[in-house]
Amino acid sequence: MDEVIADPIDKFITIYQQEHGYNYTLDQMHGKEFRELLPPELDHTLREYINRKGFFRDLKVIKDSQEVLAELNKKYDVFIVSAATEFPNSLEDKQAWLADYFPFISWTNIMFCGYKIVNTDIMIDDRTKNFTRFNGRKLLFTSPHNVMLTEYERVNNWKEAAEKLL
Amino acid sequence: MDEVIADPIDKFITIYQQEHGYNYTLDQMHGKEFRELLPPELDHTLREYINRKGFFRDLKVIKDSQEVLAELNKKYDVFIVSAATEFPNSLEDKQAWLADYFPFISWTNIMFCGYKIVNTDIMIDDRTKNFTRFNGRKLLFTSPHNVMLTEYERVNNWKEAAEKLL
Repeated sequence: MDEVIADPIDKFITIYQQEHGYNYTLDQMHGKEFRELLPPELDHTLREYINRKGFFRDLKVIKDSQEVLAELNKKYDVFIVSAATEFPNSLEDKQAWLADYFPFISWTNIMFCGYKIVNTDIMIDDRTKNFTRFNGRKLLFTSPHNVMLTEYERVNNWKEAAEKLL
Repeated sequence: MDEVIADPIDKFITIYQQEHGYNYTLDQMHGKEFRELLPPELDHTLREYINRKGFFRDLKVIKDSQEVLAELNKKYDVFIVSAATEFPNSLEDKQAWLADYFPFISWTNIMFCGYKIVNTDIMIDDRTKNFTRFNGRKLLFTSPHNVMLTEYERVNNWKEAAEKLL
């Protein structure tokens, strides 16, 4: 979900602007995690924001993800597999968010987990760590933190995912 | 989780005794779902109870599950894979319940889902429908609703699971 169909980075930028006066930009993240931009005294705050009830409830949708997933869902059996159990307060927010923006994904095809031990044919993910337990075709979805990585087949956006898979 | 490490049936019996005056017993369920015991006018109430916030938060633990899973967890990489997204109000209750009774299971190894599309070696489950998408060794955990089924390798309780797997 995060950085693939939902956009937490945009929300991080807004929070640190409004609550701490920083003006971070996506360009600064090139190859880095957002957390690495923070001054040491704010390092601990990021997990606190993420764990706040409601954090995941109003994230913006990643461009073209609704249209392309709706099309993919006609051709494939699409599952949303989200690393979420690290932040238990996110679970119900994430499912409610999916119901709002991806109503064509049934509850049967939603999975909240830690390690992604799924047996699907294809995985689209922005985190290479999620590929380590996965045996199918791996598509690295471009996000600022992963732009320097070269070892995986990449999709830069949902239009490219559509070209490869539809 | 349900009917394997957590006991919703005991809670159903208590609820229908306290709120509706029925005295159901496990013997009546032999080969049936609990719902089949209810008179038609109460049929719709079961889903309402299950979907109530808090329903899954105080379930009793199935006998010997804590001790045996703790031992299994030393030998195997144990995951808890629970069909939960049908009832979104259950998600946070289920994770908090696991933290209370199975604290040795890390958030990395918890999965809340609809269909159980996992690539583990073994699945212990009381519902044969969860075996249909699974390619590993299937162990049917005995529960009143499944006692008539014969097509799967069965474990009648956690002591038997320990004998097979430890």
